[in-house]
This record gives sequence, structure tokens and C-alpha cells, in this order.
Amino acid sequence: MVNDKRISDAVIKRLPRYYRYLCDLLDSGVTRISSGELSRRMGVTASQIRQDLNNFGCFGQQGYGYNVELLSNEIRKILGMVRTYNLIIIGAGNLGQALCNYQNFAKRGYIFTAMFDINPDLIGTTINGVKVYDIADLRKYLQENEVDIAALALPRSNSRPIVQILDEEGIKGIWNFSHVDLKVSPDVVVENVHLTDSLMTLSYRLNNQVGE
Amino acid sequence: MVNDKRISDAVIKRLPRYYRYLCDLLDSGVTRISSGELSRRMGVTASQIRQDLNNFGCFGQQGYGYNVELLSNEIRKILGMVRTYNLIIIGAGNLGQALCNYQNFAKRGYIFTAMFDINPDLIGTTINGVKVYDIADLRKYLQENEVDIAALALPRSNSRPIVQILDEEGIKGIWNFSHVDLKVSPDVVVENVHLTDSLMTLSYRLNNQVGE
Repeated sequence: MVNDKRISDAVIKRLPRYYRYLCDLLDSGVTRISSGELSRRMGVTASQIRQDLNNFGCFGQQGYGYNVELLSNEIRKILGMVRTYNLIIIGAGNLGQALCNYQNFAKRGYIFTAMFDINPDLIGTTINGVKVYDIADLRKYLQENEVDIAALALPRSNSRPIVQILDEEGIKGIWNFSHVDLKVSPDVVVENVHLTDSLMTLSYRLNNQVGE
Repeated sequence: MVNDKRISDAVIKRLPRYYRYLCDLLDSGVTRISSGELSRRMGVTASQIRQDLNNFGCFGQQGYGYNVELLSNEIRKILGMVRTYNLIIIGAGNLGQALCNYQNFAKRGYIFTAMFDINPDLIGTTINGVKVYDIADLRKYLQENEVDIAALALPRSNSRPIVQILDEEGIKGIWNFSHVDLKVSPDVVVENVHLTDSLMTLSYRLNNQVGE
């Protein structure tokens, strides 16, 4: 697999969805699928599917289609899911707990190793087997443990000093649920989940009846 | 404001972010801003900003820039935020509770009016002043109350029959946190928040060092 060209963000954003559909197919015992049938299920054009997958050298065979297992393995490799990732969650409130309790993440290799909070009632407890540490111990924890990704599930007003510690301690991935765009070093990857933005997009489409 | 042409999804997705930045500017007492300065703060090109806002007839004035209050009001109107929306949450677990407790939504006119769950320990309780109903009463509730948007914060395995009820009872907006793409009538607007997809995108970018 040669992966030396820049893949567009739009394609990257679509890959997890392909992966989800392929895993569902595997779970239902489907071993091969044509781009036409995958297109019908996913609601995208067959030519889009062929074009997207060609980016990664995944070519379907004429008259056979795609081998579901091979293709899902290939996408898993592309997505970097052939290893596990250690995640910490900053903020052990409802959202942090929701993330920690979500079964699907561990299945995909995302392992929550610690949570951090400012609330003395939460510090020292465990949530789904994950210990909640005092946020004051964040830097020390990062110096002593391998952490790949930090999920920010805390109010935006508290996020700036935390992000600075993460950045200084060399965290390379931030999954940002706080309602603010982060300022970080250029080599830090930030994936934003801005819930209010998403709700506003929904109400815009509701008012303008732009269905999917 | 003439809004008779189809605005691209990409532009619509960017509007809430403009709105967020403009509200922050207003909060800090900034009354006008050039597209250049807004560009610097938001990390997008000034020409992108001008192009996006021109879609909606929001023209900055040469040598003056944008009037922050007028522009934020205009975007608020475009986003449909001049009215309130009644939301219900299906699933009163951690994620549902996180949504219900999030202060920012009410401030923007999104009012949670009811939650629904299957768990007898939760039914009858209130979360942030919002009552949790038995999921068995969902259809009745929808028939007796005005609901604009249903947030789906429940496992994907339970979502299909629920979505059918929402669709049959004429719910027009679904904010979908369940890990599955929904099959609904064409006039129903679905906004997906697929957390696992987002995490996979992050790990892809982490492995390929595609910063923002």
C-alpha cells in the first residue's frame, strides 16, 4: 500500500463510515459486495465509492465486487486501527462518563486509562474501571504514562491551561468537546466535536428543509 | 434577505462557527471587524469569509469591515435561531444527561422538554428540571406536545423502533448520537454525531500527521 499522496479531508471523513458498513456486513455474514450494492446501502453513488477506495489502492474486481473482509482490513489499516491507543478524559462529568462508558471504543482499540477532574467528590472514584485523578496531577501523569489522545470534556472556560499542559507534555491528539477552537502546536491533531454547532446546523436545515 | 438559492452543505457547516466567533467578539466588546482580522482569528482565508458571507447578502463595507452585531444577528436569522425549539432526549443515560445539563443549549433557544428511558430507576426522576418519562409513553407524548427535535442518545440496537415512532408522529428533526445511519422519511432532517467515526478520523490523522 503506497500512501504517499495527500488524501482529501472529505475522503478521510468518509472512511470510518465505510468501515462501519463493512463491519456490519461481516457481522451479518456477507463476504463480498458490489460497489452498486454498497452504494444502495450507504446512499452514496457507486462512482463515489470506487473513487474513494481507489485513493488507497482498494480496487474491486469486475464481476466480483469487493471482498468485504479484505476491504475492511485494508480500511482498518489505513485508519491506523491496527494498534491500540491510550486515551485520557479531562472532565469526569456526564459527558466524560458517557465517553468512558461507551462500549464501542474499547472494541476498536481505544483504551481509556485515566480520567481527570477538579471535583473532590469524583477524584479517587472509578468509572467503568477507570480511575478519576485530581486534575492537579495531570502533568505528572503525562510524564509517567504513555498517552496518545486526550479527550476534552470540560467547560470551555477551563480548557486553556489544560490544553497548554497537554501541548507542553507532548500529547499529539486532542479530541475536543469543549466549545472553543484550540490553539496548539502545529503537530498536534485536534478533532472537534462542537455539539452546539451541530445543533445549529440541524435547525438551519430544519428551517430550510434540506433533508439528507 | 433573499435566500432562494441552494447553499452548499460546506457553507452551512461553517456558519455556526462564524456565529460562535462573532458572539465571542460581542462579549469582548468588539463592534466591528475586518474580514482580514476575522480571518486571522478563525484560521480561514479572508476571501473564504467574504465568499461565504456573500452567499447570504452579508457584505462588509470597504474600509469599515463588518458590523459584528448586525452580522451575528443576520447569521442568527439564517440559522433559524430567532425562535425556540422544543427538544426531547431519548435515552437518559450519561450521554442524555450530559446533553440535558449542557447550559449553552438553552441560551441559544434549544429547550429540553422531556427525556425518555427504559430504565425504571430513571423513569419519574428529573434531570436539570427535565422529567424522565417511560419510553412506552413516547407516542402519546408526541401526540400531546409540540416537539421540534428528538436527540437520540441510546444504543443503536434500540434505535430502529424508536425512530419509526418519531417518524410516524411527524418529528421533523433528529439529532442522532446512536452509532447507525437512520432510515427516515425524506422530509426528516437528520444530523449525525457519530463519535466513533470522529475518533477514527482523529487516529487516522494522528498516524498520518495531518494537523489542522
